[in-house]
Amino acid sequence: MSLTLYYAPGACSFVPHAALELAGADFEPALVKLHKGEQQTPEFRALNPRGQVPVLVDDGAAITQIVAICLHLDARFPQARLLPAAGLARTRALELLVWMNNTVHPTFTHVFMPQKFTDDAAAQAAIKTHALAQYRALLAELEAAVAARAGAWLGGEAPGVLDAYALTLLRWGGFAGIDPTTLPQTWALAQAFAALPAVARVIERERLKLNVYTPVGA
Amino acid sequence: MSLTLYYAPGACSFVPHAALELAGADFEPALVKLHKGEQQTPEFRALNPRGQVPVLVDDGAAITQIVAICLHLDARFPQARLLPAAGLARTRALELLVWMNNTVHPTFTHVFMPQKFTDDAAAQAAIKTHALAQYRALLAELEAAVAARAGAWLGGEAPGVLDAYALTLLRWGGFAGIDPTTLPQTWALAQAFAALPAVARVIERERLKLNVYTPVGA
Repeated sequence: MSLTLYYAPGACSFVPHAALELAGADFEPALVKLHKGEQQTPEFRALNPRGQVPVLVDDGAAITQIVAICLHLDARFPQARLLPAAGLARTRALELLVWMNNTVHPTFTHVFMPQKFTDDAAAQAAIKTHALAQYRALLAELEAAVAARAGAWLGGEAPGVLDAYALTLLRWGGFAGIDPTTLPQTWALAQAFAALPAVARVIERERLKLNVYTPVGA
Repeated sequence: MSLTLYYAPGACSFVPHAALELAGADFEPALVKLHKGEQQTPEFRALNPRGQVPVLVDDGAAITQIVAICLHLDARFPQARLLPAAGLARTRALELLVWMNNTVHPTFTHVFMPQKFTDDAAAQAAIKTHALAQYRALLAELEAAVAARAGAWLGGEAPGVLDAYALTLLRWGGFAGIDPTTLPQTWALAQAFAALPAVARVIERERLKLNVYTPVGA
């Protein structure tokens, strides 16, 4: 068995990156420099024609899509409890994971890359403003989910992919002018998650600053 | 065990609706009239504060999110083979399911409900035009995935949630002016899927016309 994760620092690939370290997997982290366009090279496009990270290569099979990669790793490393094993707890975790992936994450894309949705500059500005207000509301919804969690972590008693995604979405908020400390439960969760030795290795490898928020005028 | 599915005709709730019938589940279909705003009533918002279908209520637990509902039903009715059971086949199916859900589906939302992304009318028009071109490209990508499938159905030898989602996305294309017959593999798959007795019950209950495309000027 050989595992390679193609990742970009601070991108959503942080989620499977953290999952691999939490699982104690023997894997090769492969840095993709997005600012140098390395995701558009023929070599990378052979792995993922969509030119996106993350890609997990498992014994030669290139797997895309965060949710699919997380479920793949969960099946491969059940002892890591990256998600609850079964029953309604698992369904609730999947509900949250999928919502992060199909709602919160793409709302940030509208803030960060409005050019993906139109070539018109004025329309891009309108999209960005609207999405930023939505992103604030979605992080507040995430904060409520974090506050209502049953265990120490979002998936229960073990840290897992939900915590990694929550950290990522909160961190992105900082780039959009949202102070993470105004979402105290999520901020505390992200800090605790980041402090786990397995996750600290990922943060060091990706050279991430957890709080990227800069007050206006600072 | 009691199961109730809240659905709206032709909405993405078609996917779990078909899954329940394919599984032979004993369930109550509960029609939500979106055009009458029934998704905004206090009763419905108590089930799903986001005011969206589908909602599956399983023994009192309200479950949202198509992908989570599909995985929940897959775990509850393993004999139905709504998704491949394990291994790389399952991962590949999840990759496709999640992509439909986080990429193809929201692109249609940009075509159909651009007002969700800005209040500005000119920007809405720009979003819609851009998204329609993307949606055509995504349906072409779906067509390639259908053509490359290993078995009779998208998930292999058994019809399942991928086929239901493909039918839905292709059908929506008709509303956006995309003739489904120009995507012959997906159109053939959708017709074969619709003809299954279990799926025909859903189509009759939702009173769906499979091809809603109207040529310009017709």
